[in-house]
Amino acid sequence: MTKLVILPGDGIGPEIIDASLPILEKVSEKFNLEFSMETADFGGNAYDKHGNPFPDETWEKVQNSNAVILGSVGGPKWDDLPRELRPEAALLGIRKRLGLYCNIRPVKYHDILASKVVWKEEYIKGVDIVIIRELTGGAYFGAKGRDEHKAFDNIEYTAEEVERIVRRGFEIAMNRKKVLHSVDKANVLESSRLWREVTLRVAKEYPEVRLEHLYVDNAALQLVINPKQFDVIVTENMFGDILSDQAAALAGSLGMLPSASLGGEIGVYEPAHGSAPDIAGQDKANPLATILSLAMMLRFTCKNEEAAKAIEVAVEKVMNAGFATIDIAGPNSKLVGTKEMAELVLKEI
Amino acid sequence: MTKLVILPGDGIGPEIIDASLPILEKVSEKFNLEFSMETADFGGNAYDKHGNPFPDETWEKVQNSNAVILGSVGGPKWDDLPRELRPEAALLGIRKRLGLYCNIRPVKYHDILASKVVWKEEYIKGVDIVIIRELTGGAYFGAKGRDEHKAFDNIEYTAEEVERIVRRGFEIAMNRKKVLHSVDKANVLESSRLWREVTLRVAKEYPEVRLEHLYVDNAALQLVINPKQFDVIVTENMFGDILSDQAAALAGSLGMLPSASLGGEIGVYEPAHGSAPDIAGQDKANPLATILSLAMMLRFTCKNEEAAKAIEVAVEKVMNAGFATIDIAGPNSKLVGTKEMAELVLKEI
Ligand SMILES: CC(C)[C@H](C(=O)O)[C@@H](O)C(=O)O
Ligand SMILES: CC(C)[C@H](C(=O)O)[C@@H](O)C(=O)O
Repeated sequence: MTKLVILPGDGIGPEIIDASLPILEKVSEKFNLEFSMETADFGGNAYDKHGNPFPDETWEKVQNSNAVILGSVGGPKWDDLPRELRPEAALLGIRKRLGLYCNIRPVKYHDILASKVVWKEEYIKGVDIVIIRELTGGAYFGAKGRDEHKAFDNIEYTAEEVERIVRRGFEIAMNRKKVLHSVDKANVLESSRLWREVTLRVAKEYPEVRLEHLYVDNAALQLVINPKQFDVIVTENMFGDILSDQAAALAGSLGMLPSASLGGEIGVYEPAHGSAPDIAGQDKANPLATILSLAMMLRFTCKNEEAAKAIEVAVEKVMNAGFATIDIAGPNSKLVGTKEMAELVLKEI
Repeated sequence: MTKLVILPGDGIGPEIIDASLPILEKVSEKFNLEFSMETADFGGNAYDKHGNPFPDETWEKVQNSNAVILGSVGGPKWDDLPRELRPEAALLGIRKRLGLYCNIRPVKYHDILASKVVWKEEYIKGVDIVIIRELTGGAYFGAKGRDEHKAFDNIEYTAEEVERIVRRGFEIAMNRKKVLHSVDKANVLESSRLWREVTLRVAKEYPEVRLEHLYVDNAALQLVINPKQFDVIVTENMFGDILSDQAAALAGSLGMLPSASLGGEIGVYEPAHGSAPDIAGQDKANPLATILSLAMMLRFTCKNEEAAKAIEVAVEKVMNAGFATIDIAGPNSKLVGTKEMAELVLKEI
């Protein structure tokens, strides 16, 4: 039995979660898996209700679970709160408390989205990348402070922190094309020089993997001009934040991108997009990122590759049949809303 | 009389400088401007000769000049030196010693390069962006250190440092479309919250400018999916490094991108590309970034807009006539080498 905590969050979070969960029921019947689910408050709405974006009650439930399914958090409503009360603080808090140092973001181009991407087809056809982002270190969690006249954020890494994430990179590369791009800024940053040294050391244990180092500025450029050269990319927290959002363009929409955050016993699965308050409550949001995040949960928490694949194949089928939410709709798409999209996927499982 | 120090540097640096300088002679005749020029060692070759990538002798000459024309520095040959002896240290050194806090990088799409860019034409036609990068603060120059087990780089900013660069952003926006995008990561970093506060304060002095704030991850995505929305972008050092390289894709080649680094009395003008050791000495490098950097020198140091424009117009003419170095050559281009490209521009002035 897999105990899930559902954190719908803010904006479009609740509706994409609501639409997606029935898929899990279907999967549980079909693959004979058992799930229990509890919902909890998290993010801006939790702040409104409890004065805390990550209430203790929620943390209790999370600690007693096997995996967390997160919708999305944040919105302009909470932008002027002090940093520690903002919805983002809940996100950073859950990452840190659960030790989720490994963020996995697959980015895949689908031929059916040719009209939605900015690239000419020859540059993007076949793109299938996994970005592995370190998630509990660097400037996000280093010492930080400010007064009226100055401010600082310390980018801090230990060799152990680098080693464990880079190792994940090599492991994932071994299961794919055996090519790993490590991104740093070793010509300027000491933390990046440590990163590169540790990477070179770990590389000796994976002689089959071709390892390439890129400076982050060049990586950002290469991801635009030649994305097909990449298969697995591993990098530190801030660089990973930037590159993975940038790479989202390759998938045609942020609404297509799932993510898994791993590290300890409990994994967190969430769409890579934000809470999109402008379209919240309108049945317009794309639920596929959430649905694909459920597939990642089946893969990494339940270790059920077959069930994960079943969802992924169903998503491909629905997309190839021309169904699309507004964010991925081209001139010949059959436009559907959040709920209908999720139902279509469910029917294919 | 404008005193120039020429730092050819490493790799393709010497040949793009050699090819470009005759254009300055032509401009000096035509616009009745006087230049003196001295050359000095800088970068990897300076390390080889003097054991120091930024020799005192070079610094003496630079201090006595009005502007510096830099080729490019660095190469794998010097990659394993300690940080302070690497060619990049010379680059960071000259920025800091001259107080070059303001790095200006224009990025322009030319219709003639339609076949060289990865974008479909409708997304890129008309792109004309100026990225203003803070160049002497942040993680580049904050406290940094390491031992075997850990390393750190401190992102440090004072309100004054933010204010002067943001002000440049507003000034440049006032001379263009009166739209300024400020990029930060204020949902996570204290230094970004300071950045945003100062920006909002300075904005009051420029009520005509429409100011937009973007998080850096979203900025990287937007620069790919909708570059036309941008006119002037202002951001801190590291984010500017990443975004300006990424934006280079919009110009079809790094070989098209000039830059100016300003702040004190003496400006530094250099192409945004690297030293490209793989093609050095082969008369293949694109000299246009260097030539356009000379135009920026005429604009900002000599305050001669007419002379600057003369170069820029000449470059446009040569490109529109179909001449191209290998990096920007399409199926119908007339392929030329470094020298010939520069000569063609010279003839158009
Ligand atoms: C909301 C923000 C704190 C977060 C981050 O920067 O990590 C988001 O951009 C992400 O990538 O998950
Ligand atoms: C070479 C390197 C130190 C430099 C930087 O990061 O500033 C370069 O990338 C640039 O953008 O001028």
